[in-house]
Amino acid sequence: MTLVATPQTMHFAEALPLQSGASIRAYDLSYETYGELNADKSNAVLICHALNASHHVAGVYCDDSGAVIAKSEGWWDTMIGPGKPVDTDRFFVIGVNNLGSCFGSTGPMQRHPDTNEIYGADFPVVTVQDWVAAQARLLDALGIRQLAAVMGGSLGGMQALAWTLQYPERMRHAVVVASAPNLTAENIAFNEVARRAIVTDPDFHGGHFYRHGVLPKRGLRIARMIGHITYLSDDVMNEKFGRQLRDAVIDSASASGYKYSTQDVEFQIESYLRYQGDKFAEYFDANTYLLITRALDYFDPASAFGGDLSLALAQAKAKFLLVSFTTDWRFSPARSREIVKALLDNQRDVSYAEIDAPHGHDAFLLDDARYMGVVRSYFQSKVAS
Amino acid sequence: MTLVATPQTMHFAEALPLQSGASIRAYDLSYETYGELNADKSNAVLICHALNASHHVAGVYCDDSGAVIAKSEGWWDTMIGPGKPVDTDRFFVIGVNNLGSCFGSTGPMQRHPDTNEIYGADFPVVTVQDWVAAQARLLDALGIRQLAAVMGGSLGGMQALAWTLQYPERMRHAVVVASAPNLTAENIAFNEVARRAIVTDPDFHGGHFYRHGVLPKRGLRIARMIGHITYLSDDVMNEKFGRQLRDAVIDSASASGYKYSTQDVEFQIESYLRYQGDKFAEYFDANTYLLITRALDYFDPASAFGGDLSLALAQAKAKFLLVSFTTDWRFSPARSREIVKALLDNQRDVSYAEIDAPHGHDAFLLDDARYMGVVRSYFQSKVAS
Repeated sequence: MTLVATPQTMHFAEALPLQSGASIRAYDLSYETYGELNADKSNAVLICHALNASHHVAGVYCDDSGAVIAKSEGWWDTMIGPGKPVDTDRFFVIGVNNLGSCFGSTGPMQRHPDTNEIYGADFPVVTVQDWVAAQARLLDALGIRQLAAVMGGSLGGMQALAWTLQYPERMRHAVVVASAPNLTAENIAFNEVARRAIVTDPDFHGGHFYRHGVLPKRGLRIARMIGHITYLSDDVMNEKFGRQLRDAVIDSASASGYKYSTQDVEFQIESYLRYQGDKFAEYFDANTYLLITRALDYFDPASAFGGDLSLALAQAKAKFLLVSFTTDWRFSPARSREIVKALLDNQRDVSYAEIDAPHGHDAFLLDDARYMGVVRSYFQSKVAS
Repeated sequence: MTLVATPQTMHFAEALPLQSGASIRAYDLSYETYGELNADKSNAVLICHALNASHHVAGVYCDDSGAVIAKSEGWWDTMIGPGKPVDTDRFFVIGVNNLGSCFGSTGPMQRHPDTNEIYGADFPVVTVQDWVAAQARLLDALGIRQLAAVMGGSLGGMQALAWTLQYPERMRHAVVVASAPNLTAENIAFNEVARRAIVTDPDFHGGHFYRHGVLPKRGLRIARMIGHITYLSDDVMNEKFGRQLRDAVIDSASASGYKYSTQDVEFQIESYLRYQGDKFAEYFDANTYLLITRALDYFDPASAFGGDLSLALAQAKAKFLLVSFTTDWRFSPARSREIVKALLDNQRDVSYAEIDAPHGHDAFLLDDARYMGVVRSYFQSKVAS
């Protein structure tokens, strides 16, 4: 049966104090829900998204005639739905777009309620903690006191982890996939190069490009290309693209097949990256890119405990499932194991699966049987019980 | 004793046919030599450079008064000089700047001899094979028929490998450090993002920016930042920079120390990368960056043998030393082992050292005792004998 999704919006009049000391008021959150909330409101699962995703987690959209819109599947549709690992026949699943994003919730593309000017670069810096606080308010509005689980991959996993520290009583399980307790210097470095590409694009105009009727697409393309390299494993890139040429020069004297050009697309991997960059630059907001990568940089629950993650996670009360992927070099299994160790130091109930998958960081979004099996089994045997 | 280097220039009137089918005529090569060529001209060692280096391999420069110029050491001064692993008391060492580079040899910044216009984007695409052919002509001019060794790291190692295939009779040893038999899809991907950053910089002007009196510095900065990330290991980045902040905000209400800014430098790693990018953009030519990364992309001696590296290396007659570094994820030890295996398949004389070093790809330029020891011992026991 097709799961049809309907985006909704919740307005919040009361100001949300932010970690930076600033606050944001009169904001909206876009969200979707799937399945039915049970009578005692105990079956809710909150899904947190990463950089490039939204509240549209599962299901499809329909047009006015009721026909399914092509390619409108939610970003975690393999994971969530009727009969799927996170089974919407059993759980009430909530997807919410974070503050500062560009898919409906209040962000840099919207207008400041006082000045009626587009926020742009003036949108306040938001953190993982701020997102979690905003998500908790949405749950208040939906009348949900305690979540069965909070779940997310990558930056979404950081939100699930932050939930266990900010609202330990409001959740029973945390499912943290392909995530990390903080960014490494290399992770920050990749974010910084992407940000510099955006900020130094002449069309960025200090983040107020909306006023100039332009978009810093050059910078966004570069940012996305860099991102894509870090999402894939070296192995899967070699397998998918290798050194294949897009249009080998036939009958070339040299027989190498090369075009001998520095600017043309020659290798398949170049074509793939340019396509991904072009596509992204059409729909993603540049200020959102800066905000979300900064939230990633800042996330570091151990920092308030002198860098001791075990001390930091002592606050958590939830039961945990952690999943990592062997070829993920962005958030490697070693980073998940740091979290597992810190939880075990605190005698927490933790399950951990390290999935042997070739796809790198992207694996968390893909339909891998062992991965799906682990999550299904955890939800059936632990979350539902 | 201080080794003083003196750059020289050799002019070549005869056209050099290029792999692309084009040719280049009336070109200069900048080079330096260290030590003395012996009577039978059998002690010459050719050093090949990588992306960002030149003919200035060893020693220092002096000003007109004979005083040493600060920070003028050659890029491989730890390796080459009197009493060093490649001992200039024993060997006649030659450094040569490749065609298309921007440190003296003919490249995109020079004028075409026919039109008197700056080449810019019209400089022909040059390959590793072309560089090797040009280097061989320099040796002809110096009267050197056979080299004791050809040596290089990274892209320089590819040239040493190409030498063994193009001129198997003209060399006795190849020393190939931190190199690879070709680029992986991921390697090409990083090159492509860097090139796109340069080419899409509005100041690039299709590669003819010289005419406009501008330089595509934005793009060069991004390219260099990306490069730097790939030169260092995750470990050494964490050790050197970690999550350290440059100027923590003191007395912040949040106590996190963050500035909550998307555009300011906050982390030390950001400051380091921006500095490296700024420095590079001041002196490196954008067209040279495109040309050299393309030469890297194209290098693939196995391609003419159906991808069979063992068949390709059957032409080599030299004895080999290969060195790789455990934390080098750009050209990992596995890539060097591919070359070792292909040489062993051909019963070639090959020594291989995998150095346990934390510095990533950059290790090949650093003064690591085990690394230096291996090269010293190889030159003493094998090359000099």
